[in-house]
Amino acid sequence: MLTQAPAALNLRRLSPVDFLERSASIFRERVAVVDGAQRRTYPELLDRVYRLTRVLKSLGVEEGDRVAFLAKNESPLLEAHYAVPLAGAVLCALNIRLVANEIEYIVGHCGAGVVFYDAEFAPLLAGVSPQVKRVRIGGELAPGDLGDYEALLGAASNAPLENPVGDEDTTISINYTSGTTGLPKGVMYTHRGAYLNALAEVFHANLRPESAYLWTLPMFHCNGWCYPWAVTAAGATHVCLPKVDPAKIFELIENEGVTHMCGAPTVLIAIANYSGVRPFKKPLQVITAGAPPSPTTIGQIESLGATITHVYGLTETYGPVTACVWQSQWNGLTPQERARLKARQGVGLITLGARDVRVVRTAEDGSLTDVPRDAATQGEIVMRGNNVMKGYYRDPEATARAFAGGYFHSGDVAVWHPDGYIEIQDRAKDVIISGGENISTVQVEMAILEHPDVLECAVVAKPDPKWGEVPKAFVVLKEGRELSAEDLIAHCRTRLPGFKVPKAIEFTDLPKTSTGKIQKFVLREREWSGQEKRVN
Amino acid sequence: MLTQAPAALNLRRLSPVDFLERSASIFRERVAVVDGAQRRTYPELLDRVYRLTRVLKSLGVEEGDRVAFLAKNESPLLEAHYAVPLAGAVLCALNIRLVANEIEYIVGHCGAGVVFYDAEFAPLLAGVSPQVKRVRIGGELAPGDLGDYEALLGAASNAPLENPVGDEDTTISINYTSGTTGLPKGVMYTHRGAYLNALAEVFHANLRPESAYLWTLPMFHCNGWCYPWAVTAAGATHVCLPKVDPAKIFELIENEGVTHMCGAPTVLIAIANYSGVRPFKKPLQVITAGAPPSPTTIGQIESLGATITHVYGLTETYGPVTACVWQSQWNGLTPQERARLKARQGVGLITLGARDVRVVRTAEDGSLTDVPRDAATQGEIVMRGNNVMKGYYRDPEATARAFAGGYFHSGDVAVWHPDGYIEIQDRAKDVIISGGENISTVQVEMAILEHPDVLECAVVAKPDPKWGEVPKAFVVLKEGRELSAEDLIAHCRTRLPGFKVPKAIEFTDLPKTSTGKIQKFVLREREWSGQEKRVN
Repeated sequence: MLTQAPAALNLRRLSPVDFLERSASIFRERVAVVDGAQRRTYPELLDRVYRLTRVLKSLGVEEGDRVAFLAKNESPLLEAHYAVPLAGAVLCALNIRLVANEIEYIVGHCGAGVVFYDAEFAPLLAGVSPQVKRVRIGGELAPGDLGDYEALLGAASNAPLENPVGDEDTTISINYTSGTTGLPKGVMYTHRGAYLNALAEVFHANLRPESAYLWTLPMFHCNGWCYPWAVTAAGATHVCLPKVDPAKIFELIENEGVTHMCGAPTVLIAIANYSGVRPFKKPLQVITAGAPPSPTTIGQIESLGATITHVYGLTETYGPVTACVWQSQWNGLTPQERARLKARQGVGLITLGARDVRVVRTAEDGSLTDVPRDAATQGEIVMRGNNVMKGYYRDPEATARAFAGGYFHSGDVAVWHPDGYIEIQDRAKDVIISGGENISTVQVEMAILEHPDVLECAVVAKPDPKWGEVPKAFVVLKEGRELSAEDLIAHCRTRLPGFKVPKAIEFTDLPKTSTGKIQKFVLREREWSGQEKRVN
Repeated sequence: MLTQAPAALNLRRLSPVDFLERSASIFRERVAVVDGAQRRTYPELLDRVYRLTRVLKSLGVEEGDRVAFLAKNESPLLEAHYAVPLAGAVLCALNIRLVANEIEYIVGHCGAGVVFYDAEFAPLLAGVSPQVKRVRIGGELAPGDLGDYEALLGAASNAPLENPVGDEDTTISINYTSGTTGLPKGVMYTHRGAYLNALAEVFHANLRPESAYLWTLPMFHCNGWCYPWAVTAAGATHVCLPKVDPAKIFELIENEGVTHMCGAPTVLIAIANYSGVRPFKKPLQVITAGAPPSPTTIGQIESLGATITHVYGLTETYGPVTACVWQSQWNGLTPQERARLKARQGVGLITLGARDVRVVRTAEDGSLTDVPRDAATQGEIVMRGNNVMKGYYRDPEATARAFAGGYFHSGDVAVWHPDGYIEIQDRAKDVIISGGENISTVQVEMAILEHPDVLECAVVAKPDPKWGEVPKAFVVLKEGRELSAEDLIAHCRTRLPGFKVPKAIEFTDLPKTSTGKIQKFVLREREWSGQEKRVN
């Protein structure tokens, strides 16, 4: 007797919710989550996910509805990555570093009917419509709150539920771009895309059942590069970290046997320059992205006993879409040479086809042509495939623009090396053209960062009557260090051709986005105010 | 300008051919294949795949056509796993241990228009229609051959080709079951299924770019459990092995830095009992299936420096569908306890949902009910999902029967342990019911194999006037050993309850299938000849 068409048997839809159900059925004693003093096994995590799913349903959440979370890297946001899709709904994890009017815009744009929020961030909801239901995480209930997260979970049933999603192309989450310019756009991820990206992360980070993953990367950032699903798929342990604090990071790495963490180079710089810095007792895999890590940072972190893997991606690509896959023939190179190879963005992940990530030039007719693999010719990185978003939520025009020519356009400028590895030269807007020669601001920044007194820096174009544009460097020194502009320029002269040496240096703080990226456009605006154009 | 619908961008069809194209573009210096004296890099392998694809097209192979290969574990059959699908065609890798009339039946049933055959197996083609085109691999051309494999490749273009497959549910291969009874059935694999299973194998075997995989498992057996695709996906090295020969196995493991191999317990027994046995210099991952490895075999192989992972599956499940995933809380157990845990078939692979592998009983109305997880109640293992075949080729009735109740029926009898792990008790036909008590023949075999003089054994039911059935053991001793039936029975009495101890022992050779499985049905037939039924 057939109760289901045979074809359906071998075409089960892909959904990352399956990873938790599988791990809960297999890893019955393994600690799934360490969250402060709380330690929960995989069956206990699934129990809470069933409860949260029922809470969502009791709040009126239906299939396709958006559910917003404004929370730290703690259990509730991890649970949301399973319960919201299990309710058939769409997760909108909000960036806790935004300001109130940005939160107002995003909650309005995604149309969430419920927002779960950490008590600490209550002020950020100031502009959100009172029509949006509120559930409080921690602290005393405030007027307008429908309930407390733990109390609601405690009262809900933990009976198993079936994943209602039948079509794997169903949207699982919407992640709003941090938007250095213009309004934030809602990037839609699918069940299929999240599932495949999670498997790719498992491979590239080499997550194993015995791994422990420290949550240095925000879960609200590209759904934590799909690690809420990847770590669970491997049956590894999630170690929560509500706030990036080097002392706490070292404590958790040592006490919880952490084997993996992700983070932007700024996180690595904070770790390397922490006053209590000490070697890791266990090998640590560190996956970094957001900006190429400098050879200096790589050297510092790896000397503590870690291995750095550099990956690259955007919100539109579920986080990482390329990895600087290590080649055994590089093992014998000098630390400096190895660091330089490692600072490249690399190659498409294991789940990508050979033509799914390219460096191209767009012709007048919109067609895309590969740049030569000469490590010199610049082009734009474009990508397609299951690691690329479904589109921008409620913005078909922006989606069509971003997908022109059949690929997603990153806006990042790169060269292609003869060995197939991609190396970003700049954000499209950051290229400096000086006397007809292209200058990679990244290259100039790398040179400056090699100076032992420099903590961070950013290089932008500055208008120049003779050369059109020249590089100007904004530099932050390490605590207690002193350095003159002249000495730093002399340092650069030993490392860069003359035209790439900064013509001006300013010692100052750097403006950053809420996700920690340096806002070069702010610096550029400052240099170019009063000018008609932004190129010269 | 849009040259492609946006939706297609994030829904690229999954195809394992992509793994080779990616690895060739990334691992430009890595050795992809070691085949005797030949060593080829990934770009060189892809080059040959493009040439073979063109040869196929020149022979008139079109989309959906079947292409048969009768070949050893050498480069041509590995290349076929990419070139045949790249031509849009379907690979039928033939079992070289079959007899001529079986080959005749299979080539006729799959309707292959071309057969590539190793010169050594020419006699097996005796019954194949002269209408079927022949390409010879090695040796002198024979009458009727259209050409020699290497010559044809050498003359073909190596210009890149695009994978023409648009629908990931397209059939990529047909694998004929070895069929201990009845006619062989053609099991259809899809591009999607092969892709996902390959990723699962990469995870469970922990294949890394620096791994080297020894081809002890035949590539014609379930497409080598999808390892032709998995090893390539990881960017690891394929080490060919035309024939299972312990001396050659030790030589390749040592000279090629082998890190992984797969094989049935009979292969492991051959290695452990080889006269030149010696410890492995590098940690070796051994993945075994086909029968539960005995604690004795596990102990012998692991004492050489290997780690055994026990997996389970069928031709209908792309090879492995469960793995006995190791749990860190078992690390402290005694070797004997660890071996007993490891002999279990385990849990669904990472790509399977928690409900995709079950142990069930089928009710009168065809509905499936889980057996309790009590390690005692027997049921049938059933499975569904992307790791299950699309169906039997040209046999919708057998497909519908196999998929009754919405799951594929394995015919294997198992218990479900409280920790979620499955343990096979028997093939459905091998259960012995003695005085109303079920006896697992596997358990009896394990007890016998613990005797230091025993090499191999098989236990089947023998009719008995008092108890209905009793266990009878067929035993092969190690070379030069002597053992009486009385002593072996006494040995079993210290390990088994009285009703499970064999009531008869016969020292003899064991009948085996072409894939090395012991043909218990032959032994059973011998015991039951003259009886009306096969149960008592």
